[in-house]
Amino acid sequence: MRIAVDAIGGDQGPEVVVPGAVAGARTFDVALSLVGPEAVIRHHLSSIDLSGVDVDVVDAPDAIEMDEHPAQAIRRKPKASIPVALREVQAGRSAGAISAGNSGAMMAASLLVLGRIAGIDRPAIGSFLPSARSRTLVLDLGAVTDPKPHHLVQFAIMGRVYAERILGISNPTLGLLSNGEEPTKGNQFVQEVYPLLARADGLNFQGNVEGKDVPLGTVDIVVTDGFTGNVALKVAEGVATMMTDLLRSELTATLPRKLASLALRHAFRSVRSRLDYSEIGGAPLLGVDGTVVIAHGRSDAKAIMNAVGVARRSVEADLPGGIREAVTRQTAGKDPVVPLGADGELSTSP
Amino acid sequence: MRIAVDAIGGDQGPEVVVPGAVAGARTFDVALSLVGPEAVIRHHLSSIDLSGVDVDVVDAPDAIEMDEHPAQAIRRKPKASIPVALREVQAGRSAGAISAGNSGAMMAASLLVLGRIAGIDRPAIGSFLPSARSRTLVLDLGAVTDPKPHHLVQFAIMGRVYAERILGISNPTLGLLSNGEEPTKGNQFVQEVYPLLARADGLNFQGNVEGKDVPLGTVDIVVTDGFTGNVALKVAEGVATMMTDLLRSELTATLPRKLASLALRHAFRSVRSRLDYSEIGGAPLLGVDGTVVIAHGRSDAKAIMNAVGVARRSVEADLPGGIREAVTRQTAGKDPVVPLGADGELSTSP
Repeated sequence: MRIAVDAIGGDQGPEVVVPGAVAGARTFDVALSLVGPEAVIRHHLSSIDLSGVDVDVVDAPDAIEMDEHPAQAIRRKPKASIPVALREVQAGRSAGAISAGNSGAMMAASLLVLGRIAGIDRPAIGSFLPSARSRTLVLDLGAVTDPKPHHLVQFAIMGRVYAERILGISNPTLGLLSNGEEPTKGNQFVQEVYPLLARADGLNFQGNVEGKDVPLGTVDIVVTDGFTGNVALKVAEGVATMMTDLLRSELTATLPRKLASLALRHAFRSVRSRLDYSEIGGAPLLGVDGTVVIAHGRSDAKAIMNAVGVARRSVEADLPGGIREAVTRQTAGKDPVVPLGADGELSTSP
Repeated sequence: MRIAVDAIGGDQGPEVVVPGAVAGARTFDVALSLVGPEAVIRHHLSSIDLSGVDVDVVDAPDAIEMDEHPAQAIRRKPKASIPVALREVQAGRSAGAISAGNSGAMMAASLLVLGRIAGIDRPAIGSFLPSARSRTLVLDLGAVTDPKPHHLVQFAIMGRVYAERILGISNPTLGLLSNGEEPTKGNQFVQEVYPLLARADGLNFQGNVEGKDVPLGTVDIVVTDGFTGNVALKVAEGVATMMTDLLRSELTATLPRKLASLALRHAFRSVRSRLDYSEIGGAPLLGVDGTVVIAHGRSDAKAIMNAVGVARRSVEADLPGGIREAVTRQTAGKDPVVPLGADGELSTSP
């Protein structure tokens, strides 16, 4: 299996992406296509041990910056690393693509180059908040800031495929993120989504869940709009970062504390790893017809390495195939509550 | 100064509220009116040392349950502890009211009994997420799930008064919670709010902030709709709870770790107190014409005690008076961008 990695994307650029991707190729036993300006990539490769790793370079002279308008950038720069990496997937030369660059551009290019799965109107980013007790899959984490209510039924279907195929959970439980557990809680959008999820077949819907239920792992899958999901993800990351920093400063404030902390370093490492988003690596963009992994803009080499693992597992699990099947099953039901496979403006009742 | 406390509200009821309120009266040197079924309150008072504390009981035989519809419950149960506590404020017998009970009912009763401040269309709950580096005031945390864009300008004005008068910050900075820092980021609602905040006078608006900026303390005040604010608050609480639990279990996993942890107990206590919402106590309901403090439903005695401190500081700072002045200043400006003091359906441009 070969994975295409945008070598220049992300806040820290090729200096961390190239070694991280090579480490990922070695750790997860995949071949690697590094996509970006060839000379830059070769320069960064020159100081890395490549023994036993199959790495090639795909030249893409242009770069899409973090602040560029996604759709415009894709049209103006067809030779940028993001669209070139996706064309590697579309042409079958790579099984999946990863970028830590402009995530909006990654989404726009994925839709343009790979297309949507029939029955899915909007793709969704599905991943995890820094969490200890559990792995609650949250989607959408930022692909669609203003979804229609019926899009969340599609998110739930895609989340279910992910939970079954990647996390190995049979009949995963589903919650709708709200400001209270009672069915009457929620903003207007959530109150429109609730009955759609409740009536849809086979989603194992448990009702509304609150923000605390995500870190506490009350349900396996939580669906929300991409705006709220992104805020929730970044609040969790911020609290985790702040706590880790605070612990470090308290525990090293005096020499006796430093000595006592030494005895506890394994315990702290264990806690920190549960909160470290670089352990997660990247989030698959669900609903596009191919394997696309969006890595955190602030990714370090470890995050990129783990994103390669996410890509490999997504390819092996054939998430697009699973989503296609699940959508077909849903629409084949006698009484489809939510019309799938049409454009995003469709009404939410048949 | 006398504070009225709903003695039966909250998940743990009078068993924690009564001793917590008495401790608050002693700690913050205020007189106390405990509101609820008289016999129940007297029973819980009987085992508490009341020396040096001025406590009276205001009989309110009814109770509003957590799952009751707020407005209906207020109409059907005028003798419930929540409306009776607010009538104590309205009649001038108490300077402020506190409840850890049904927060929707507390808000509905506050609007009914005390009314809104002229110029404020919707009240907002303003408080803090568990946070270490700073105290970022976030509003709204759940009073208004579907505000109009111009309501967030009112939230910003109220937050500014709170930050100046309670936190002692002059010219506090303001951020709009979004899914990215760029002005183009946000869902449709945020994109409508952004120009209103940017054009309003004297708000010291710094632009969009992300979820991580709340725990990290990038700005002094963050405004958001009550749905997103509530999700953010509960995610932060969940991550903090989960981390505290995880640390405890890791640090007591073996005897050597337990011994080393003993030496660090002051450090851990310091970290925990920064994450403990019972240290915050309660959140003022801003925009109603009187001092109303909403305590967490899960409040323990310490949280109730600290809520008494929040009430005292809110009364002393005269938040309603400060908000009234700030609204007047805003509307007296030559070019008021946002019409204030009208109903919630007003357009956002003059």
